[in-house]
Amino acid sequence: MSALVTLTTDFGTRDAYVAEMKGVILDIARAAGRTLDLIDVTHDVAPHDITEGALALDAAAPFFPAGTVHLAVIDPGVGTERRGLVVRTPRAFFVGPDNGLFTPFFEGPASWEAWELREPAYRLATVSRTFHGRDVFAPAAAHLATGVMPDRFGPPVRDPRRLSWRTVRGSTGAIAGAVVHVDRFGNLVTSIRADSLDAVGATPRIRLAGRSVPLVGTYGDLERGQAGALVGSSGRLEVAVREGSAAARFKARRGTPVVVSRSSGPATKRVRRVP
Amino acid sequence: MSALVTLTTDFGTRDAYVAEMKGVILDIARAAGRTLDLIDVTHDVAPHDITEGALALDAAAPFFPAGTVHLAVIDPGVGTERRGLVVRTPRAFFVGPDNGLFTPFFEGPASWEAWELREPAYRLATVSRTFHGRDVFAPAAAHLATGVMPDRFGPPVRDPRRLSWRTVRGSTGAIAGAVVHVDRFGNLVTSIRADSLDAVGATPRIRLAGRSVPLVGTYGDLERGQAGALVGSSGRLEVAVREGSAAARFKARRGTPVVVSRSSGPATKRVRRVP
Amino acid sequence: MSALVTLTTDFGTRDAYVAEMKGVILDIARAAGRTLDLIDVTHDVAPHDITEGALALDAAAPFFPAGTVHLAVIDPGVGTERRGLVVRTPRAFFVGPDNGLFTPFFEGPASWEAWELREPAYRLATVSRTFHGRDVFAPAAAHLATGVMPDRFGPPVRDPRRLSWRTVRGSTGAIAGAVVHVDRFGNLVTSIRADSLDAVGATPRIRLAGRSVPLVGTYGDLERGQAGALVGSSGRLEVAVREGSAAARFKARRGTPVVVSRSSGPATKRVRRVP
Repeated sequence: MSALVTLTTDFGTRDAYVAEMKGVILDIARAAGRTLDLIDVTHDVAPHDITEGALALDAAAPFFPAGTVHLAVIDPGVGTERRGLVVRTPRAFFVGPDNGLFTPFFEGPASWEAWELREPAYRLATVSRTFHGRDVFAPAAAHLATGVMPDRFGPPVRDPRRLSWRTVRGSTGAIAGAVVHVDRFGNLVTSIRADSLDAVGATPRIRLAGRSVPLVGTYGDLERGQAGALVGSSGRLEVAVREGSAAARFKARRGTPVVVSRSSGPATKRVRRVP
Repeated sequence: MSALVTLTTDFGTRDAYVAEMKGVILDIARAAGRTLDLIDVTHDVAPHDITEGALALDAAAPFFPAGTVHLAVIDPGVGTERRGLVVRTPRAFFVGPDNGLFTPFFEGPASWEAWELREPAYRLATVSRTFHGRDVFAPAAAHLATGVMPDRFGPPVRDPRRLSWRTVRGSTGAIAGAVVHVDRFGNLVTSIRADSLDAVGATPRIRLAGRSVPLVGTYGDLERGQAGALVGSSGRLEVAVREGSAAARFKARRGTPVVVSRSSGPATKRVRRVP
Repeated sequence: MSALVTLTTDFGTRDAYVAEMKGVILDIARAAGRTLDLIDVTHDVAPHDITEGALALDAAAPFFPAGTVHLAVIDPGVGTERRGLVVRTPRAFFVGPDNGLFTPFFEGPASWEAWELREPAYRLATVSRTFHGRDVFAPAAAHLATGVMPDRFGPPVRDPRRLSWRTVRGSTGAIAGAVVHVDRFGNLVTSIRADSLDAVGATPRIRLAGRSVPLVGTYGDLERGQAGALVGSSGRLEVAVREGSAAARFKARRGTPVVVSRSSGPATKRVRRVP
């Protein structure tokens, strides 16, 4: 069966940068006699936005076959002393800069191990100062996908960098979080995970940008143009407007605060529960 | 030979949604021991625009190898009672919501059969309320591509939903249609098919937004900046401006009316015929 | 091992044009019993911008495995008398219109041969007047990838069209070039190649849009928000602003002049050399 490598970058698709990485990967795989499939996660992460890259990986990686190599390059520190990493979890491998991109996989229930990318044999012969995606990370992903063991790349890393994006639980059980992502439809993905909703009861009160939003089961429970909060496909609380943009409606963007608390009055009356 | 699955969505390429679907498909195919190639038709269909998705499928599907599975998810009704479909034509399979997306394949000369997607064995174990593309349609496409017979997915469907985008023929033989798509170059693709032009003679009179447009054979017959109508690569009448945007020139958009009638005077004098 | 075909176009990814080409290629490859991998270089070349397409090819092609077929369709002359070409270099094949797209491969140190695409057997049975990408170039790329020899497509071409984008060397050794590409990050890629910098000494003076820019080794040598010139990953001189847009800072775009000259005073004092 062919090896699988996914790509997540902020390079966009207008320039040839992503293709250069793919050429490098395919060249190494073929030299090793391996076939290999390349799948794009996204190349439209906002430039230098490590959080957005981490969320894209967090959303996509669980659905890929075991053993997939996820190459991620959002790398504002290229050319500085930041390390490169290979990370192994029970299900997958991750390759990229050590800048917090892999935070979701360090914080979940699964175990992980990481190594620094130091071994020159697994880089291109000439490494540019500005494009480690092509010259360092793509070759590492290719060698990993063709069967090189992760501990061959360099010494273990036990303190990889992590983003701090956790939600905060208040003394009354309320959860304070924030919008972490605005998707193409204007849906607002928050930092609040579905499982943390249980603690605030079946009909929690949800406030975004100071306004109440009813909790619903799916977009179909909303009238056209109505706003609602729901557990999105990523397992996080999302705020959506049916066939409209919640980002525009609430003038919300990444960082806009969201608070979920126990119901204490009329706000939940508006909630239409799904059977 | 590997199985082939194409994808057509309105998910955009900034978020990880498309990658989640691809991960699901590859995981199912590999579990079945099959290799499988994934080809994007487009993910930039305007959000919730079923007509645009249907036109993209209509343009692309005929060029793919026999047996290709076309997965299409423009699904504003996700979470409501709308059905999911698998459609079989002599050449291909189609999987997606029953909302008119597959209209072109119900209206052509070829026969078709359809079944409802009901069998839980061909879905993910957990189906979200908001992302049937990943949880219902992608698994169905993957199982179909690995050899599951279409009648295994559920009961036959004889009344799939259809869009009404037909053109109207007037009593004088004139054809009234509309712009159905504005492409990246500003070309205006209309609802009028090439074969219906025969009925109005060799030098028809074409009016868009109230202005006459000459019929030409190809862009090269136009001067730089000149507007003309031609039979486009999709087999439909298109209005184009050479190295310019017809959408801007005519202030036209989807729905702008187009009328083709028998020549009756000076309008056709401007037509430059192609040998 | 599967054959490899890359695609470079100005078709965008919203319409189905690229998918139509891919369908054609896969259909021909399968009919010949070959598996084949398709890799996008970019489809977001500015409409009709041959120079931008040539630069994308120039950047990407060297990284792909030997024998890769690069299909490129930026084709404002479709439907006119312009020729179609297949080009062979020691490392790769190129297929597309004869309008200058392949200039980089005619000007490098490597040898090349070219043939005109004339043989009807290697086209679709019906060739539209407006979409030779699908009807002429995609089939040619597919047949080439499945093993058809390039001289089977038509007569040799010894005078392919070339873009004139060379830089000019002045009598004092100064090099006058221009911005040839603005990438997604606002980096300004110039026509000046790294090797031509040697002639102006170790600390050249670089002026863009009338302002001095220090030469640095990598983005990391710049303060956040500082502008600098560096040799980019493409081997060309680039002007960048760290975590910012040089295009916005300098109000620069394609064609903005860049001059590199021998240092003769204080301008180079600002240069921070990289060890």
